[in-house]
Amino acid sequence: MVWFTEYQTENVGLTIKAKEVKTINSKYQEIIVLDTEEFGKVLVLDGAVQTTEKDEFMYHEMLVHPALIKHPQPQRVLIIGGGDGGSVREALKHKSVEEVHLCEIDEEVIFVSEKYFPSISSKLRDEKVKIFIEDGNQFLEERKNYYDVIIMDSSDPIGPAEVLFQESFYKKVKSSLRKNGIMVAQTESPFLQEKYFKNAVKEIKKVFKYVGVYTGFVPTYPAGMWSYTLASDDVNVLDNVNKDRLDNIETKYIDEYLYTNLFAIPKFIKNMIE
Amino acid sequence: MVWFTEYQTENVGLTIKAKEVKTINSKYQEIIVLDTEEFGKVLVLDGAVQTTEKDEFMYHEMLVHPALIKHPQPQRVLIIGGGDGGSVREALKHKSVEEVHLCEIDEEVIFVSEKYFPSISSKLRDEKVKIFIEDGNQFLEERKNYYDVIIMDSSDPIGPAEVLFQESFYKKVKSSLRKNGIMVAQTESPFLQEKYFKNAVKEIKKVFKYVGVYTGFVPTYPAGMWSYTLASDDVNVLDNVNKDRLDNIETKYIDEYLYTNLFAIPKFIKNMIE
Repeated sequence: MVWFTEYQTENVGLTIKAKEVKTINSKYQEIIVLDTEEFGKVLVLDGAVQTTEKDEFMYHEMLVHPALIKHPQPQRVLIIGGGDGGSVREALKHKSVEEVHLCEIDEEVIFVSEKYFPSISSKLRDEKVKIFIEDGNQFLEERKNYYDVIIMDSSDPIGPAEVLFQESFYKKVKSSLRKNGIMVAQTESPFLQEKYFKNAVKEIKKVFKYVGVYTGFVPTYPAGMWSYTLASDDVNVLDNVNKDRLDNIETKYIDEYLYTNLFAIPKFIKNMIE
Repeated sequence: MVWFTEYQTENVGLTIKAKEVKTINSKYQEIIVLDTEEFGKVLVLDGAVQTTEKDEFMYHEMLVHPALIKHPQPQRVLIIGGGDGGSVREALKHKSVEEVHLCEIDEEVIFVSEKYFPSISSKLRDEKVKIFIEDGNQFLEERKNYYDVIIMDSSDPIGPAEVLFQESFYKKVKSSLRKNGIMVAQTESPFLQEKYFKNAVKEIKKVFKYVGVYTGFVPTYPAGMWSYTLASDDVNVLDNVNKDRLDNIETKYIDEYLYTNLFAIPKFIKNMIE
């Protein structure tokens, strides 16, 4: 029995009791798999909790479904990051989706997820899915005007993922979207990571015409409070359209009522990004 | 410099770095005041974080305002627990309120709050406020058919506060409300305290005709996810009426849009209480 602590800032940590700890060093990072009583299996990259069996649905549903529902008919989806497979699994719940490209820089994350997180990685080998072990920034260069939805399922903007939160990168995302394309990005915690959150939204606003920010619970992420940012040049992402599509999708977190009230977020968070 | 850890369950803890720690033993409990970089001053009762300078507004605004806004004209308010004064401060923002009774069992909590948390306790000596150092359960016996709004701002349902989450107690609350009376209770975290949450809502539903459950962020509470339950026999608390009253109230968390979408809560939480 050990206690694992993620220091979410210099001054606050989440401490989790683990029955078993496995450590794998990949080319890019230290990957830890904890087996815990409270959250089931927990995936940790360079000390930061990425996903847990118990609360991953909150993050993956909120990241994926609003963008796919707002798009008139999403067929081609790109996920950057997200090697655990949770976003792939959610994207494939939409009938119109014909192909899902997953661009993950670290192959080892995929192997670890397939071995230890079968409920999250379950659709990674689906026939509609193609996996690219590449740098997201490079990958986009070769895919212009192609995707309907691009999902930024990245780790924190420190080290390798920093570039994924900058204006120059969002411009590439935009040019890889085709007509009516929508991007959605995880944009960190507005509470313990206020600086990262504000900066990400600011950079996205420089590039896209329509931008919408919403929040959701993820208990194992900093402050338990997470943000997501939708962006498009053609679709007004603030319109809550097509809500009946949720009838055909199995979810645990988002339902029609939550979806149509997606932007009912705390006032202090709105004030941060005005 | 010390690290304080609240074990929110047997298997998970919130760890906070503190510059200074003060411990006071009252007749009822161990009171700790931490001075921290991340959350400012933190009030801890018997090991559990009750309130922090940085995120207390999220809890106090969400606990107090919906009930007071839904009431046609709240004049008499009772707060049970809440010795820190945050709920008193919020209740007094409503112009129609003529008297606020605070029933707190532990006088020491009030003294500590007045000494270390001036921004939270600021209205405890307001002329509209009357403080009763009594057991909430006893107090209600002598106040039948009197209050417009009763706010249950209690600690966790372990030890002394356990009785405050039971059907017999909610019956007393109901008989202390006058016509159009509304109760609101903090009802724990639906994630790490699922059992307490479900039980509290179940007991409230046994007693009141109209019941509405909503959630909000409180980063320093278990899972960062908190629940609140509104209940009344006369007012349909699910109706989002009187939202323009928020125009005249200074808030940081709740605004008109959030208020009118108060019940847009995650699906898995709805399923717990159906």
